[in-house]
Amino acid sequence: MHELVERLLKGDKRAAARLITLVDDQDPIAAELMKQIHPHTGKAHIVGITGPPGSGKSTLVSKLALEYRERDMRVGIIAVDPTSPFTGGAILGDRIRMSEVVLDPGVFIRSLSTRGALGGLSRATFDAAMILDAYGCDVVMIETVGAGQSEVDIVRVAHTTAVINVPGSGDDIQAIKAGILEIGDVFIVNKADRPGVERIVGELEAMLSLDKDWRHADEDDDEHWTRPILVTVARDGEGIGEVVSSFEAHREFMDRTGTRKVVEEQRFESIIREMLGDLIIDLMERAVSREELEVMVADVAARKIDKMDAVERLMDRIMDQRGNG
Amino acid sequence: MHELVERLLKGDKRAAARLITLVDDQDPIAAELMKQIHPHTGKAHIVGITGPPGSGKSTLVSKLALEYRERDMRVGIIAVDPTSPFTGGAILGDRIRMSEVVLDPGVFIRSLSTRGALGGLSRATFDAAMILDAYGCDVVMIETVGAGQSEVDIVRVAHTTAVINVPGSGDDIQAIKAGILEIGDVFIVNKADRPGVERIVGELEAMLSLDKDWRHADEDDDEHWTRPILVTVARDGEGIGEVVSSFEAHREFMDRTGTRKVVEEQRFESIIREMLGDLIIDLMERAVSREELEVMVADVAARKIDKMDAVERLMDRIMDQRGNG
Repeated sequence: MHELVERLLKGDKRAAARLITLVDDQDPIAAELMKQIHPHTGKAHIVGITGPPGSGKSTLVSKLALEYRERDMRVGIIAVDPTSPFTGGAILGDRIRMSEVVLDPGVFIRSLSTRGALGGLSRATFDAAMILDAYGCDVVMIETVGAGQSEVDIVRVAHTTAVINVPGSGDDIQAIKAGILEIGDVFIVNKADRPGVERIVGELEAMLSLDKDWRHADEDDDEHWTRPILVTVARDGEGIGEVVSSFEAHREFMDRTGTRKVVEEQRFESIIREMLGDLIIDLMERAVSREELEVMVADVAARKIDKMDAVERLMDRIMDQRGNG
Repeated sequence: MHELVERLLKGDKRAAARLITLVDDQDPIAAELMKQIHPHTGKAHIVGITGPPGSGKSTLVSKLALEYRERDMRVGIIAVDPTSPFTGGAILGDRIRMSEVVLDPGVFIRSLSTRGALGGLSRATFDAAMILDAYGCDVVMIETVGAGQSEVDIVRVAHTTAVINVPGSGDDIQAIKAGILEIGDVFIVNKADRPGVERIVGELEAMLSLDKDWRHADEDDDEHWTRPILVTVARDGEGIGEVVSSFEAHREFMDRTGTRKVVEEQRFESIIREMLGDLIIDLMERAVSREELEVMVADVAARKIDKMDAVERLMDRIMDQRGNG
């Protein structure tokens, strides 16, 4: 077993940080280390927390971490930021807002960047969550920025997904437009000291009432999860206990109904498909030189050959390489 | 040549609509049809337009279309919405806002959904833009909802990317956090009749001044593109002419400097890599039965085998299948 993995399993924080850096950098050694870590995972509850910019995600996550600590649980926090040379300040800002928890040894906080790799973000997030699971975190919260595909990708990493909305955000249908409503297991209306809380709660209720499972749940059926709408003022700590209790209730629901096993299998199938896509790109880059690829691409851009012709040629080259290798 | 492609090249609007439906549905015939369409593309200017929810994208795009029509250009509009059973109303709302242009025969408007396919959105968008190019559109505007990865993906489809911001959106750093500033060729501050315009323009200028190329451009160097910050009130048509003129200036800049060829090659390389990833998933699904895959995934979820072991086994099965096929 690699020394870093040994140290991780003993609860060494620096080993956890180093391993997450390796997966974030897509270091070639990461796959082998993840293989060693894999059998020591499966205990942590992975919670995804998403919402539009300005909805107070970082403050909320920070308060949730404090609440989990009150309950004697070890907490991991993964903040996912898209690659940007400009984000330094924003990330620092988030970290300052999280200052209440950074000094607590029972809390591990880490930002992920992805460094521009296509699709690398959800895989790095998945592996970082596994590392914090093996490290001994009881819960790992994944906070994402933005609204759109990255939020939908969270679902593939998390057991429980919380969607944050805020009142009076100008365009109340933003969450609906972004298509993230249906991914929520728990809904949070944060900044509830602002006007317009009833309106957004009403809109959320109306939206959720369109969902078949939700209506079933309304009938007090043990087999279905009632997707709660919770109201918080994270800055003042209001409603935080209820949010943690609802996350815990969802975890218990999943364990009781066997949903957890189904969700675990979905998570792994999704990441395996993604890794297969990554592997074929690696194999292509080994089978074809940069110059050859550029000539092929230039022929496509010049409309000499079609893009699917190029794809088929690349696949043939990969197969030849692997057959001979 | 397929009848639909023949009709498309003659400018048949219904054929264009039908072909876009086929790529959006990921119909197996789509790849062959795109191959036939490919040689007839390369003329249209593909413009991506992105910004946070509530920034008035649909209204802006609608006004830009009217302006392009004034200049006797044929316009395609592709509105990209994430898959959602809930978005029906929102899409309808956008379309109503676009009602000024829907009756114009020189404007083609279409929403894309992706129907939940992982990564399928940028490929469908790419192909839809090619279809509208072959159909005879001089410009194709792609409007995306949300903020995050989907915006970054636009760049891979567009020649020119416009990023919209609005004043007083509460969290002015939202575009920075979402990492989309660096993808813009043109910046638009819409809803400029609201207070706070100077502040957001100043923030954008400060951000852009960190960018090396922008500083070069400031020195009036013909080899660099000065990323403009334009102020609009799209609802009232203010500033619309300047936006279209800056899109046209960027197109001319790309043609003059040879940047267009570079951008075309980047677009195609990116989509070829994506198609290679899609192809390996197709091949996997043909090589391995659903039951076998489920057993493998269950073994990973039960921590009996590692996820990379599963990926390698799947790759071996694909290679065997292809070797024998």
